[in-house]
Amino acid sequence: MTQTSSAPPVPRTTSQRREHAQAQLRERHEVWLATGGPAGPHLIPVNYVWGGTELIMATFDPSPTVANLRDRPAARVAIGDHDDVTMIDGTVALVPAGDLEPDLAEAFARVSHDPRAMPGLVYLRFRPRRAQVWNGFHEFTNRTVMRDGVWVR
Amino acid sequence: MTQTSSAPPVPRTTSQRREHAQAQLRERHEVWLATGGPAGPHLIPVNYVWGGTELIMATFDPSPTVANLRDRPAARVAIGDHDDVTMIDGTVALVPAGDLEPDLAEAFARVSHDPRAMPGLVYLRFRPRRAQVWNGFHEFTNRTVMRDGVWVR
Repeated sequence: MTQTSSAPPVPRTTSQRREHAQAQLRERHEVWLATGGPAGPHLIPVNYVWGGTELIMATFDPSPTVANLRDRPAARVAIGDHDDVTMIDGTVALVPAGDLEPDLAEAFARVSHDPRAMPGLVYLRFRPRRAQVWNGFHEFTNRTVMRDGVWVR
Repeated sequence: MTQTSSAPPVPRTTSQRREHAQAQLRERHEVWLATGGPAGPHLIPVNYVWGGTELIMATFDPSPTVANLRDRPAARVAIGDHDDVTMIDGTVALVPAGDLEPDLAEAFARVSHDPRAMPGLVYLRFRPRRAQVWNGFHEFTNRTVMRDGVWVR
């Protein structure tokens, strides 16, 4: 990384980072979704809505993402850019198009294709277990803002 | 996705997409790197340089990324944003800090931490096998611009 003569950037506090992650979850609607399993390491850009405790996404069934999740319901998702990362590890449940709560389905339809109207899609209900926030190398330490599914305070 | 009354966007040709992928590889230096293996599905933002046939990246050894790659030397990387995706599947060789060709090591040091100067880093030499380019749902078909390591013409 390029050295400059200016003072090093000051890392944010854990509270500031937790609030940033929560704001990102509410306000953004795009995530990079990584899975692993028989289809190999897979990665897709996908839209989401945040329901307060879970991310709702959707993708095609069949697809490498769904094949991986049927074998191993674990995923890691990134929100933001390289210089403003919110990275979340968690577990994923597959939910048929007709089985999602109507309020979540309505919210999701506003940001993506609607699985209720478009055949072949399945919802992914992602429950965060660990969340980390950093905006550069100077924030590599103390970046965990959720641990074992609980926001760090 | 929101319906609008404007005409649907026109998909780019394969040649246009191939040239876009090649330009992105040369001009960008940030990638999302997904791996899978004993450490679970993993995803990191990481810098790279394009050497003409391979991406050069680096990360910490030990790390979940390196643990996964030692078990299964496969990766998938994304360059760009959700509305301008270059997605590449390939294989990764781990290269100790002193073992990379000097010209590639110099080029890499200009965009990232330098593994020759910073202990604990290992180079990742990523060889593309398949590359896909799309900038929206209208480009989901015909998005493969490299197949079996060969650019599609």
